[in-house]
Amino acid sequence: MAVYTHLGPEQVSLFLSQYDVGDLIALKGIAEGVENSNYYLETTKNRFILTLYENRVDPADLPFFYALLKHLHEAGCKVPRFIADRDGRWLQEIAGRPACLIEFLHGVSVTQPNRLQAEATGAALGQMHAALADFQPQRPNSLGISVWRSLARQCTTSGLENIYQGLAQRIEAECDFLELHWPKDLPMGAIHADLFPDNVLMLGNQVTGLIDFYFACTDFCGFDLAVTHSAWCFAPDGSTFHPDLSAALLAGYNRHFAIDVPTRDALPLFLRGACLRFLLTRCYDWINTPANALVTRKDPLAFLRRLDFYSDKDNISAILG
Amino acid sequence: MAVYTHLGPEQVSLFLSQYDVGDLIALKGIAEGVENSNYYLETTKNRFILTLYENRVDPADLPFFYALLKHLHEAGCKVPRFIADRDGRWLQEIAGRPACLIEFLHGVSVTQPNRLQAEATGAALGQMHAALADFQPQRPNSLGISVWRSLARQCTTSGLENIYQGLAQRIEAECDFLELHWPKDLPMGAIHADLFPDNVLMLGNQVTGLIDFYFACTDFCGFDLAVTHSAWCFAPDGSTFHPDLSAALLAGYNRHFAIDVPTRDALPLFLRGACLRFLLTRCYDWINTPANALVTRKDPLAFLRRLDFYSDKDNISAILG
Repeated sequence: MAVYTHLGPEQVSLFLSQYDVGDLIALKGIAEGVENSNYYLETTKNRFILTLYENRVDPADLPFFYALLKHLHEAGCKVPRFIADRDGRWLQEIAGRPACLIEFLHGVSVTQPNRLQAEATGAALGQMHAALADFQPQRPNSLGISVWRSLARQCTTSGLENIYQGLAQRIEAECDFLELHWPKDLPMGAIHADLFPDNVLMLGNQVTGLIDFYFACTDFCGFDLAVTHSAWCFAPDGSTFHPDLSAALLAGYNRHFAIDVPTRDALPLFLRGACLRFLLTRCYDWINTPANALVTRKDPLAFLRRLDFYSDKDNISAILG
Repeated sequence: MAVYTHLGPEQVSLFLSQYDVGDLIALKGIAEGVENSNYYLETTKNRFILTLYENRVDPADLPFFYALLKHLHEAGCKVPRFIADRDGRWLQEIAGRPACLIEFLHGVSVTQPNRLQAEATGAALGQMHAALADFQPQRPNSLGISVWRSLARQCTTSGLENIYQGLAQRIEAECDFLELHWPKDLPMGAIHADLFPDNVLMLGNQVTGLIDFYFACTDFCGFDLAVTHSAWCFAPDGSTFHPDLSAALLAGYNRHFAIDVPTRDALPLFLRGACLRFLLTRCYDWINTPANALVTRKDPLAFLRRLDFYSDKDNISAILG
């Protein structure tokens, strides 16, 4: 959570002069997103988010994200739109970075979701999957199962053992298990792939926006549901599972999207895979981020605890019935 | 520039329920201020800044800052007000920190001031000094001349020499000189003491707000003018002096506040003192802040260059006539 590139109002005013959005009257760097620099800005006409894409987002992926959000918006899903300038361009450059002006949405990201909020989030995810059934563009999942073993190797055995004794072996066994059983022939579609509470804006119990689509990619929709389940249904440290949030999330989802039987059968695998994905990227960041860096390191073990939970057949039965 | 304490909307909504300000509809941590955590927040009624005071602000000083801003606001100066809750309290606690809800002001902080902006800033500083003539509360300047030698000692000779060869001796000689000549019997008043472009909000060439009063204290108004002059009239790295900005700033100031002759005579000392104060605190931060910490380290030498400039009698004659 940081502003990596600092902008003065003179630069931003020049940037805004390409758009028909009025004059700059407020500009605040905001602590949101770990991949980008974000500014809240206000003009005489409206409010916006200005996003500068730093090194972790490949500019070649931006057309995919743009097309995805446009498609979702036109289908009635609550997502922020990229704003086009007078010549119809939605991608610009500022301070040497690719940059986009994005719609500002009201709403806040809850940290202690209630049942109705989990249900609304499940519903928004289901609506999104339904809306994307006819979305054609593709982007491979750069953090999907094909890279997990390589990510584990990059963490190194000693790096993983420093985090938690036995972790390296546990991760290797989980890679073995998931690679052996992972489904190959299920239908794929565009997924959000990172729908944590941070990335859902709400007013009361209503979803006002799904945001931060920069991990969005083409993968199994059941994997997206699994990521969302693992992100919403536990205490943040993974120590406590909340069955009421789980039931509400799944009920909201199922009301808007009918998952096929093979996907449903693969959910226990997807839930474990979702945990392994966040366990691995958090281990990688833990090992490679200085403790006092701009970005707060997130505890990898919060996802080891979730993985343990989902690896228990009784727990899975209680969740999926 | 960082958010040190992370707040969820649930906490903030509970906090806001003490005020008559409507319901929370947006909350963004903002990268503003190095002393505090700041949030931009929006309710169904208005926009605000929520400031949490971290370790570097002494809560015992908050009543002074509150009284100062109230006095300035009532005198017609453009400063943000502290918002009182239903019981008239302006100081609360959130997440274990002292916290205040503060008026949100439009405007942006210029990074390349023009002549009219420098004049408007000088005028706003003069209006502030005039308005504070009858302000009684006092707060010692914890970064004034009485602490400079001690700050230099805390930096250590080797620390200073690592920054720039000869710096330790230069600073000691400057302390000697300023302690010998510093005026003792000039009238004192409340001053901002940190009026850099960062701390002035502007729309076009108009000042819409002076902000960040957390270094405000009781000292010579000429010292405040000197700090502002050193902050506004050079390229940020101190390499280039802008005589047009200097003339405009002083003209704006003089139009609103008539400085006495002894203060005017002491301005060459105050200009050198202002440089030494920022040179020292920047050295201290440079030595004590890891290069990759949350707070960006500012180049101390930018103020050594200004000190060199102000130590030249010809330059002083050109500035003050």
